[in-house]
Amino acid sequence: MTKGEMLYEGKAKRVFHTDNSDQYIVEYKDDATAFNGEKKGTISGKGQLNNAISTIFMEMLKEHNIPTHFISKLNANEQLVRKVEIVLLEVVVRNIAAGSLAKRLGMAEGTVLPKAVVEFYYKDDDLGDPLINDSHIDVLNLATPETVAKMAEYGRQINDILINYLKDRKVKLVDFKLEFGITPQGELILADEISPDTCRFWDADTNEKLDKDRFRRDMGNVEEAYQEMLRRLGGVEV
Amino acid sequence: MTKGEMLYEGKAKRVFHTDNSDQYIVEYKDDATAFNGEKKGTISGKGQLNNAISTIFMEMLKEHNIPTHFISKLNANEQLVRKVEIVLLEVVVRNIAAGSLAKRLGMAEGTVLPKAVVEFYYKDDDLGDPLINDSHIDVLNLATPETVAKMAEYGRQINDILINYLKDRKVKLVDFKLEFGITPQGELILADEISPDTCRFWDADTNEKLDKDRFRRDMGNVEEAYQEMLRRLGGVEV
Repeated sequence: MTKGEMLYEGKAKRVFHTDNSDQYIVEYKDDATAFNGEKKGTISGKGQLNNAISTIFMEMLKEHNIPTHFISKLNANEQLVRKVEIVLLEVVVRNIAAGSLAKRLGMAEGTVLPKAVVEFYYKDDDLGDPLINDSHIDVLNLATPETVAKMAEYGRQINDILINYLKDRKVKLVDFKLEFGITPQGELILADEISPDTCRFWDADTNEKLDKDRFRRDMGNVEEAYQEMLRRLGGVEV
Repeated sequence: MTKGEMLYEGKAKRVFHTDNSDQYIVEYKDDATAFNGEKKGTISGKGQLNNAISTIFMEMLKEHNIPTHFISKLNANEQLVRKVEIVLLEVVVRNIAAGSLAKRLGMAEGTVLPKAVVEFYYKDDDLGDPLINDSHIDVLNLATPETVAKMAEYGRQINDILINYLKDRKVKLVDFKLEFGITPQGELILADEISPDTCRFWDADTNEKLDKDRFRRDMGNVEEAYQEMLRRLGGVEV
Protein backbone atom coordinates (compact mmCIF):
# COMPACT_ATOMS: atom_id res chain seq x y z
CA MET A 1 0.00 0.00 0.00
CA THR A 2 1.63 3.22 -1.16
CA LYS A 3 0.57 6.46 0.46
CA GLY A 4 -0.13 9.03 -2.23
CA GLU A 5 -1.03 12.69 -2.33
CA MET A 6 -2.99 14.27 0.48
CA LEU A 7 -6.63 14.64 -0.49
CA TYR A 8 -7.88 16.58 2.49
CA GLU A 9 -6.79 17.81 5.91
CA GLY A 10 -9.46 18.16 8.56
CA LYS A 11 -9.30 19.27 12.17
CA ALA A 12 -8.34 15.87 13.53
CA LYS A 13 -7.35 13.76 10.51
CA ARG A 14 -5.60 13.80 7.16
CA VAL A 15 -6.82 11.72 4.23
CA PHE A 16 -4.43 10.43 1.53
CA HIS A 17 -4.85 8.77 -1.82
CA THR A 18 -3.34 5.30 -2.21
CA ASP A 19 -2.32 3.27 -5.25
CA ASN A 20 -5.75 1.63 -5.05
CA SER A 21 -8.32 4.08 -6.42
CA ASP A 22 -11.01 2.61 -4.15
CA GLN A 23 -9.05 3.12 -0.92
CA TYR A 24 -7.78 5.97 1.21
CA ILE A 25 -5.37 6.17 4.11
CA VAL A 26 -6.60 8.14 7.11
CA GLU A 27 -4.00 9.58 9.47
CA TYR A 28 -5.14 10.55 12.96
CA LYS A 29 -3.64 13.76 14.38
CA ASP A 30 -3.09 14.93 17.93
CA ASP A 31 -4.72 18.29 17.13
CA ALA A 32 -7.89 19.06 19.01
CA THR A 33 -10.43 21.77 18.30
CA ALA A 34 -13.72 22.70 19.90
CA PHE A 35 -16.55 25.21 19.50
CA ASN A 36 -16.28 25.19 15.71
CA GLY A 37 -12.51 25.71 15.76
CA GLU A 38 -12.51 28.66 18.19
CA LYS A 39 -10.60 26.63 20.77
CA LYS A 40 -7.48 24.88 19.52
CA GLY A 41 -4.97 22.64 21.22
CA THR A 42 -3.08 19.38 21.17
CA ILE A 43 -3.84 16.25 23.12
CA SER A 44 -0.64 14.28 23.32
CA GLY A 45 -1.14 10.77 21.94
CA LYS A 46 -4.72 11.45 20.77
CA GLY A 47 -4.07 10.40 17.19
CA GLN A 48 -2.84 6.95 18.21
CA LEU A 49 -5.53 6.56 20.86
CA ASN A 50 -8.40 7.46 18.53
CA ASN A 51 -7.00 5.29 15.78
CA ALA A 52 -6.95 2.36 18.21
CA ILE A 53 -10.36 3.12 19.74
CA SER A 54 -12.12 3.71 16.44
CA THR A 55 -10.62 0.48 15.07
CA ILE A 56 -12.18 -1.46 17.95
CA PHE A 57 -15.60 0.14 17.43
CA MET A 58 -15.57 -0.21 13.64
CA GLU A 59 -14.56 -3.89 13.78
CA MET A 60 -17.25 -4.52 16.38
CA LEU A 61 -19.89 -2.77 14.24
CA LYS A 62 -18.80 -4.79 11.21
CA GLU A 63 -19.53 -7.94 13.23
CA HIS A 64 -23.02 -6.53 13.78
CA ASN A 65 -23.46 -6.13 10.00
CA ILE A 66 -23.17 -2.35 9.93
CA PRO A 67 -21.37 -1.44 6.66
CA THR A 68 -18.38 0.80 7.37
CA HIS A 69 -15.51 2.35 5.44
CA PHE A 70 -12.96 0.69 7.78
CA ILE A 71 -10.66 -1.88 6.18
CA SER A 72 -7.69 -2.25 8.54
CA LYS A 73 -5.41 -0.48 10.98
CA LEU A 74 -2.08 0.07 9.24
CA ASN A 75 0.05 1.39 12.08
CA ALA A 76 -0.14 3.56 15.19
CA ASN A 77 -1.64 6.58 13.45
CA GLU A 78 -3.07 5.24 10.20
CA GLN A 79 -6.04 3.28 8.92
CA LEU A 80 -6.93 2.01 5.49
CA VAL A 81 -10.51 2.83 4.54
CA ARG A 82 -12.86 2.54 1.60
CA LYS A 83 -13.13 5.58 -0.63
CA VAL A 84 -16.43 7.38 -0.18
CA GLU A 85 -17.96 10.71 -0.93
CA ILE A 86 -18.87 12.10 2.47
CA VAL A 87 -22.52 13.10 2.93
CA LEU A 88 -22.48 16.67 4.25
CA LEU A 89 -24.59 15.79 7.25
CA GLU A 90 -23.58 14.91 10.78
CA VAL A 91 -25.94 12.48 12.45
CA VAL A 92 -26.06 12.98 16.20
CA VAL A 93 -27.75 10.40 18.43
CA ARG A 94 -28.43 11.26 22.06
CA ASN A 95 -29.46 9.24 25.09
CA ILE A 96 -28.76 11.77 27.84
CA ALA A 97 -29.08 15.57 27.64
CA ALA A 98 -25.71 17.33 27.34
CA GLY A 99 -24.04 20.01 25.24
CA SER A 100 -26.18 21.80 22.68
CA LEU A 101 -29.26 19.66 23.34
CA ALA A 102 -29.32 20.60 27.03
CA LYS A 103 -29.10 24.25 25.99
CA ARG A 104 -31.61 24.06 23.12
CA LEU A 105 -34.33 22.29 25.10
CA GLY A 106 -33.54 23.82 28.49
CA MET A 107 -32.72 20.48 30.10
CA ALA A 108 -30.23 19.94 32.89
CA GLU A 109 -27.10 18.09 31.72
CA GLY A 110 -27.50 14.45 32.66
CA THR A 111 -31.26 14.26 32.12
CA VAL A 112 -31.97 10.81 30.73
CA LEU A 113 -34.06 11.19 27.56
CA PRO A 114 -37.24 9.06 27.43
CA LYS A 115 -36.07 7.83 24.03
CA ALA A 116 -33.07 8.42 21.78
CA VAL A 117 -33.00 11.72 19.91
CA VAL A 118 -31.63 11.81 16.36
CA GLU A 119 -30.45 15.10 14.89
CA PHE A 120 -28.95 16.17 11.58
CA TYR A 121 -26.39 18.95 11.36
CA TYR A 122 -25.24 20.58 8.13
CA LYS A 123 -21.48 19.99 7.83
CA ASP A 124 -20.43 23.56 7.08
CA ASP A 125 -17.73 25.18 9.20
CA ASP A 126 -18.54 28.69 7.99
CA LEU A 127 -22.11 28.29 9.21
CA GLY A 128 -21.04 26.59 12.46
CA ASP A 129 -22.60 23.21 11.55
CA PRO A 130 -26.21 24.29 12.17
CA LEU A 131 -29.02 21.94 13.18
CA ILE A 132 -31.27 21.37 10.19
CA ASN A 133 -34.41 19.36 9.45
CA ASP A 134 -35.56 17.10 6.61
CA SER A 135 -37.02 20.04 4.76
CA HIS A 136 -33.69 21.94 4.81
CA ILE A 137 -31.80 18.81 3.70
CA ASP A 138 -34.23 18.56 0.81
CA VAL A 139 -33.81 22.13 -0.47
CA LEU A 140 -30.03 22.00 0.03
CA ASN A 141 -30.04 18.72 -1.89
CA LEU A 142 -27.66 17.15 0.65
CA ALA A 143 -29.16 13.68 0.49
CA THR A 144 -32.29 11.98 -0.79
CA PRO A 145 -35.12 11.37 1.69
CA GLU A 146 -34.32 7.64 1.43
CA THR A 147 -30.66 8.25 2.36
CA VAL A 148 -31.70 10.49 5.25
CA ALA A 149 -34.08 7.83 6.56
CA LYS A 150 -31.35 5.18 6.22
CA MET A 151 -28.83 7.34 8.09
CA ALA A 152 -31.30 7.87 10.94
CA GLU A 153 -32.03 4.13 11.01
CA TYR A 154 -28.31 3.24 11.08
CA GLY A 155 -27.86 5.87 13.81
CA ARG A 156 -30.48 4.18 15.99
CA GLN A 157 -29.10 0.70 15.29
CA ILE A 158 -25.54 1.75 16.07
CA ASN A 159 -26.80 3.42 19.23
CA ASP A 160 -28.37 0.16 20.43
CA ILE A 161 -25.21 -1.80 19.62
CA LEU A 162 -22.90 0.70 21.30
CA ILE A 163 -25.04 1.10 24.44
CA ASN A 164 -25.03 -2.62 24.93
CA TYR A 165 -21.32 -3.00 24.22
CA LEU A 166 -20.36 -0.14 26.54
CA LYS A 167 -22.61 -1.23 29.39
CA ASP A 168 -20.34 -4.25 29.98
CA ARG A 169 -17.40 -1.85 30.10
CA LYS A 170 -19.02 0.41 32.71
CA VAL A 171 -19.46 3.28 30.29
CA LYS A 172 -22.63 5.29 29.62
CA LEU A 173 -23.10 6.43 26.04
CA VAL A 174 -24.41 9.99 26.42
CA ASP A 175 -24.40 10.96 22.74
CA PHE A 176 -22.31 10.58 19.60
CA LYS A 177 -21.82 11.94 16.10
CA LEU A 178 -21.67 9.83 12.96
CA GLU A 179 -20.71 10.64 9.40
CA PHE A 180 -21.63 8.59 6.40
CA GLY A 181 -20.28 8.31 2.90
CA ILE A 182 -21.38 6.94 -0.42
CA THR A 183 -19.09 4.50 -2.23
CA PRO A 184 -18.39 4.75 -5.96
CA GLN A 185 -20.87 1.85 -6.25
CA GLY A 186 -23.57 3.98 -4.55
CA GLU A 187 -23.63 2.19 -1.20
CA LEU A 188 -24.24 4.25 1.96
CA ILE A 189 -21.69 3.22 4.61
CA LEU A 190 -20.51 4.53 7.96
CA ALA A 191 -17.37 6.68 7.65
CA ASP A 192 -15.28 8.97 9.86
CA GLU A 193 -14.46 7.69 13.36
CA ILE A 194 -16.02 6.63 16.66
CA SER A 195 -13.87 7.90 19.50
CA PRO A 196 -13.83 10.20 22.54
CA ASP A 197 -13.59 13.05 19.99
CA THR A 198 -16.99 12.17 18.55
CA CYS A 199 -18.83 10.62 21.51
CA ARG A 200 -19.67 11.60 25.07
CA PHE A 201 -18.67 8.72 27.35
CA TRP A 202 -19.39 8.85 31.09
CA ASP A 203 -18.22 6.39 33.70
CA ALA A 204 -21.27 4.30 34.57
CA ASP A 205 -20.87 4.77 38.33
CA THR A 206 -19.37 8.22 38.80
CA ASN A 207 -20.44 10.04 35.59
CA GLU A 208 -16.79 11.04 35.20
CA LYS A 209 -16.26 12.31 31.68
CA LEU A 210 -14.07 10.10 29.48
CA ASP A 211 -14.20 12.21 26.32
CA LYS A 212 -13.39 15.49 24.62
CA ASP A 213 -15.53 17.49 27.04
CA ARG A 214 -12.45 17.35 29.31
CA PHE A 215 -10.64 19.38 26.63
CA ARG A 216 -13.62 21.64 25.82
CA ARG A 217 -14.09 22.51 29.48
CA ASP A 218 -10.41 22.60 30.55
CA MET A 219 -10.98 19.77 33.04
CA GLY A 220 -7.49 18.31 32.73
CA ASN A 221 -6.45 14.64 32.40
CA VAL A 222 -7.61 14.61 28.81
CA GLU A 223 -5.08 12.08 27.52
CA GLU A 224 -5.68 9.93 30.60
CA ALA A 225 -9.42 9.82 29.86
CA TYR A 226 -8.79 8.64 26.27
CA GLN A 227 -6.29 6.06 27.62
CA GLU A 228 -8.92 4.88 30.11
CA MET A 229 -11.48 4.46 27.33
CA LEU A 230 -9.03 2.39 25.30
CA ARG A 231 -8.27 0.29 28.37
CA ARG A 232 -11.96 -0.39 28.99
CA LEU A 233 -12.44 -1.44 25.37
CA GLY A 234 -9.69 -3.99 25.87
CA GLY A 235 -7.21 -2.26 23.62
CA VAL A 236 -3.46 -2.22 24.14
CA GLU A 237 -2.31 0.96 25.84
CA VAL A 238 -0.49 3.25 23.43
CA MET B 1 -71.20 38.18 24.45
CA THR B 2 -69.79 39.26 27.81
CA LYS B 3 -66.06 39.75 28.13
CA GLY B 4 -64.82 37.96 31.22
CA GLU B 5 -61.54 37.65 33.05
CA MET B 6 -58.27 37.91 31.18
CA LEU B 7 -56.82 34.44 30.58
CA TYR B 8 -53.48 35.43 29.10
CA GLU B 9 -51.54 38.43 27.86
CA GLY B 10 -49.03 37.87 25.08
CA LYS B 11 -46.72 40.24 23.25
CA ALA B 12 -49.32 41.35 20.70
CA LYS B 13 -52.65 40.13 22.03
CA ARG B 14 -54.77 39.61 25.13
CA VAL B 15 -57.14 36.66 25.50
CA PHE B 16 -60.31 36.84 27.63
CA HIS B 17 -62.86 34.36 28.85
CA THR B 18 -66.45 34.90 27.74
CA ASP B 19 -69.78 33.69 29.12
CA ASN B 20 -69.54 30.84 26.61
CA SER B 21 -67.07 28.30 27.94
CA ASP B 22 -66.14 27.25 24.37
CA GLN B 23 -65.23 30.76 23.21
CA TYR B 24 -62.61 33.38 23.90
CA ILE B 25 -62.29 37.05 22.96
CA VAL B 26 -58.91 38.03 21.49
CA GLU B 27 -57.90 41.68 21.73
CA TYR B 28 -55.17 42.90 19.36
CA LYS B 29 -52.64 45.34 20.85
CA ASP B 30 -50.48 48.01 19.24
CA ASP B 31 -47.41 46.66 21.07
CA ALA B 32 -44.65 45.30 18.89
CA THR B 33 -41.68 43.19 19.91
CA ALA B 34 -38.87 41.58 17.96
CA PHE B 35 -35.80 39.41 18.55
CA ASN B 36 -37.50 37.42 21.29
CA GLY B 37 -38.66 40.56 23.11
CA GLU B 38 -35.30 42.34 23.11
CA LYS B 39 -36.68 45.11 20.91
CA LYS B 40 -39.93 46.67 22.06
CA GLY B 41 -42.10 49.39 20.59
CA THR B 42 -45.56 50.44 19.55
CA ILE B 43 -46.94 50.56 16.04
CA SER B 44 -49.82 53.01 16.09
CA GLY B 45 -53.00 51.35 14.81
CA LYS B 46 -51.40 47.90 14.55
CA GLY B 47 -54.00 46.21 16.75
CA GLN B 48 -56.89 47.34 14.55
CA LEU B 49 -54.96 46.64 11.34
CA ASN B 50 -53.96 43.10 12.31
CA ASN B 51 -57.46 42.36 13.57
CA ALA B 52 -58.83 43.43 10.19
CA ILE B 53 -56.12 41.67 8.15
CA SER B 54 -56.27 38.41 10.09
CA THR B 55 -60.06 38.41 9.80
CA ILE B 56 -59.80 38.57 6.00
CA PHE B 57 -57.25 35.72 5.88
CA MET B 58 -59.11 33.51 8.35
CA GLU B 59 -62.45 33.94 6.55
CA MET B 60 -60.75 33.20 3.25
CA LEU B 61 -59.09 30.04 4.67
CA LYS B 62 -62.43 28.91 6.09
CA GLU B 63 -63.83 29.08 2.55
CA HIS B 64 -60.98 26.76 1.54
CA ASN B 65 -62.02 24.28 4.25
CA ILE B 66 -59.14 24.97 6.61
CA PRO B 67 -60.51 24.64 10.15
CA THR B 68 -59.67 27.76 12.19
CA HIS B 69 -60.45 29.15 15.62
CA PHE B 70 -61.92 32.33 14.07
CA ILE B 71 -65.63 32.92 14.67
CA SER B 72 -66.21 36.63 14.02
CA LYS B 73 -64.76 40.12 14.26
CA LEU B 74 -66.45 41.85 17.16
CA ASN B 75 -65.14 45.40 16.81
CA ALA B 76 -62.02 47.31 15.79
CA ASN B 77 -59.66 45.49 18.16
CA GLU B 78 -61.48 42.29 19.09
CA GLN B 79 -62.32 38.90 17.62
CA LEU B 80 -64.39 36.04 18.94
CA VAL B 81 -62.58 32.72 18.61
CA ARG B 82 -63.04 29.08 19.53
CA LYS B 83 -61.39 27.97 22.74
CA VAL B 84 -58.35 25.80 22.12
CA GLU B 85 -55.31 24.58 23.93
CA ILE B 86 -52.38 25.99 21.97
CA VAL B 87 -49.83 23.43 20.72
CA LEU B 88 -46.44 24.70 21.89
CA LEU B 89 -45.01 24.62 18.38
CA GLU B 90 -44.69 27.36 15.82
CA VAL B 91 -44.96 26.11 12.25
CA VAL B 92 -42.96 28.25 9.85
CA VAL B 93 -43.38 27.84 6.10
CA ARG B 94 -40.89 29.52 3.76
CA ASN B 95 -40.83 30.17 0.03
CA ILE B 96 -37.97 32.66 -0.16
CA ALA B 97 -34.87 32.78 2.05
CA ALA B 98 -35.01 35.55 4.67
CA GLY B 99 -34.43 36.04 8.37
CA SER B 100 -33.13 33.06 10.34
CA LEU B 101 -33.25 30.68 7.37
CA ALA B 102 -30.97 32.88 5.28
CA LYS B 103 -28.54 32.94 8.22
CA ARG B 104 -28.81 29.23 9.10
CA LEU B 105 -28.25 27.97 5.56
CA GLY B 106 -25.96 30.76 4.38
CA MET B 107 -28.34 31.91 1.65
CA ALA B 108 -28.70 35.47 0.40
CA GLU B 109 -31.98 37.06 1.44
CA GLY B 110 -34.36 36.82 -1.50
CA THR B 111 -33.14 33.44 -2.77
CA VAL B 112 -36.18 31.61 -4.07
CA LEU B 113 -36.29 28.15 -2.49
CA PRO B 114 -36.71 25.23 -4.93
CA LYS B 115 -39.60 24.05 -2.77
CA ALA B 116 -41.33 25.25 0.39
CA VAL B 117 -39.47 24.65 3.65
CA VAL B 118 -41.45 23.71 6.77
CA GLU B 119 -39.91 24.23 10.19
CA PHE B 120 -41.04 23.66 13.76
CA TYR B 121 -39.99 25.95 16.58
CA TYR B 122 -40.50 25.23 20.26
CA LYS B 123 -42.71 28.00 21.69
CA ASP B 124 -40.59 28.88 24.72
CA ASP B 125 -39.57 32.50 25.28
CA ASP B 126 -36.88 31.60 27.82
CA LEU B 127 -35.18 29.39 25.24
CA GLY B 128 -35.67 31.91 22.42
CA ASP B 129 -38.11 29.67 20.48
CA PRO B 130 -35.43 27.26 19.16
CA LEU B 131 -35.72 25.28 15.94
CA ILE B 132 -36.46 21.66 16.79
CA ASN B 133 -37.02 18.45 14.85
CA ASP B 134 -39.53 15.60 15.08
CA SER B 135 -37.29 13.73 17.46
CA HIS B 136 -37.16 16.69 19.91
CA ILE B 137 -40.95 17.15 19.65
CA ASP B 138 -41.31 13.49 20.53
CA VAL B 139 -39.14 13.55 23.67
CA LEU B 140 -40.65 16.87 24.81
CA ASN B 141 -44.08 15.32 24.24
CA LEU B 142 -45.29 18.51 22.55
CA ALA B 143 -47.54 16.76 20.03
CA THR B 144 -48.11 13.27 18.65
CA PRO B 145 -46.37 12.34 15.39
CA GLU B 146 -49.82 12.37 13.74
CA THR B 147 -50.51 15.92 14.95
CA VAL B 148 -47.07 17.06 13.79
CA ALA B 149 -47.66 15.57 10.34
CA LYS B 150 -51.09 17.21 10.18
CA MET B 151 -49.65 20.60 11.15
CA ALA B 152 -47.00 20.33 8.43
CA GLU B 153 -49.67 19.29 5.92
CA TYR B 154 -51.95 22.21 6.89
CA GLY B 155 -48.90 24.49 6.68
CA ARG B 156 -48.24 23.44 3.08
CA GLN B 157 -51.92 23.69 2.14
CA ILE B 158 -52.27 27.15 3.67
CA ASN B 159 -49.09 28.19 1.87
CA ASP B 160 -50.55 27.20 -1.49
CA ILE B 161 -53.81 29.01 -0.75
CA LEU B 162 -52.08 32.17 0.47
CA ILE B 163 -49.55 32.31 -2.40
CA ASN B 164 -52.36 32.12 -4.89
CA TYR B 165 -54.54 34.65 -3.07
CA LEU B 166 -51.69 37.14 -2.65
CA LYS B 167 -50.45 36.83 -6.23
CA ASP B 168 -53.59 38.59 -7.45
CA ARG B 169 -52.86 41.35 -4.93
CA LYS B 170 -49.29 41.86 -6.14
CA VAL B 171 -47.76 40.46 -2.95
CA LYS B 172 -45.07 37.78 -2.63
CA LEU B 173 -45.43 35.49 0.36
CA VAL B 174 -41.84 35.11 1.61
CA ASP B 175 -42.59 33.12 4.78
CA PHE B 176 -45.08 32.92 7.62
CA LYS B 177 -45.64 31.48 11.07
CA LEU B 178 -48.70 29.51 12.13
CA GLU B 179 -49.93 28.32 15.48
CA PHE B 180 -52.42 25.58 16.03
CA GLY B 181 -54.67 24.60 18.89
CA ILE B 182 -56.68 21.61 19.98
CA THR B 183 -60.36 22.09 20.79
CA PRO B 184 -62.00 20.52 23.86
CA GLN B 185 -63.38 17.99 21.34
CA GLY B 186 -59.84 17.07 20.26
CA GLU B 187 -59.85 18.73 16.86
CA LEU B 188 -56.63 20.34 15.56
CA ILE B 189 -57.44 23.79 14.17
CA LEU B 190 -55.52 26.86 13.05
CA ALA B 191 -55.26 29.48 15.82
CA ASP B 192 -53.41 32.75 16.46
CA GLU B 193 -53.33 35.27 13.57
CA ILE B 194 -52.17 35.77 10.00
CA SER B 195 -50.88 39.31 9.63
CA PRO B 196 -47.80 41.40 8.83
CA ASP B 197 -46.66 40.48 12.37
CA THR B 198 -46.50 36.80 11.47
CA CYS B 199 -45.75 36.83 7.73
CA ARG B 200 -43.13 38.35 5.46
CA PHE B 201 -44.94 40.11 2.59
CA TRP B 202 -42.97 41.71 -0.26
CA ASP B 203 -44.39 43.85 -3.04
CA ALA B 204 -44.41 41.61 -6.13
CA ASP B 205 -42.67 44.18 -8.34
CA THR B 206 -40.34 46.11 -6.04
CA ASN B 207 -39.74 43.61 -3.17
CA GLU B 208 -40.64 46.47 -0.81
CA LYS B 209 -41.30 45.01 2.63
CA LEU B 210 -44.91 45.23 3.79
CA ASP B 211 -44.47 43.56 7.17
CA LYS B 212 -42.87 43.65 10.61
CA ASP B 213 -39.34 43.59 9.18
CA ARG B 214 -39.84 47.37 8.77
CA PHE B 215 -40.07 47.54 12.57
CA ARG B 216 -37.32 44.95 13.22
CA ARG B 217 -34.90 46.81 10.95
CA ASP B 218 -35.96 50.39 11.76
CA MET B 219 -36.98 51.01 8.16
CA GLY B 220 -39.77 53.47 8.97
CA ASN B 221 -43.31 53.62 7.51
CA VAL B 222 -44.31 50.61 9.53
CA GLU B 223 -47.96 51.56 10.03
CA GLU B 224 -48.16 52.60 6.37
CA ALA B 225 -46.96 49.14 5.29
CA TYR B 226 -49.66 47.43 7.41
CA GLN B 227 -52.25 49.87 5.97
CA GLU B 228 -51.06 49.06 2.46
CA MET B 229 -51.44 45.33 3.12
CA LEU B 230 -55.00 45.86 4.35
CA ARG B 231 -55.75 47.98 1.29
CA ARG B 232 -54.48 45.27 -1.07
CA LEU B 233 -56.60 42.67 0.69
CA GLY B 234 -59.63 44.85 -0.01
CA GLY B 235 -60.23 45.76 3.61
CA VAL B 236 -61.58 49.07 4.82
CA GLU B 237 -58.79 51.37 5.94
CA VAL B 238 -58.70 51.78 9.70
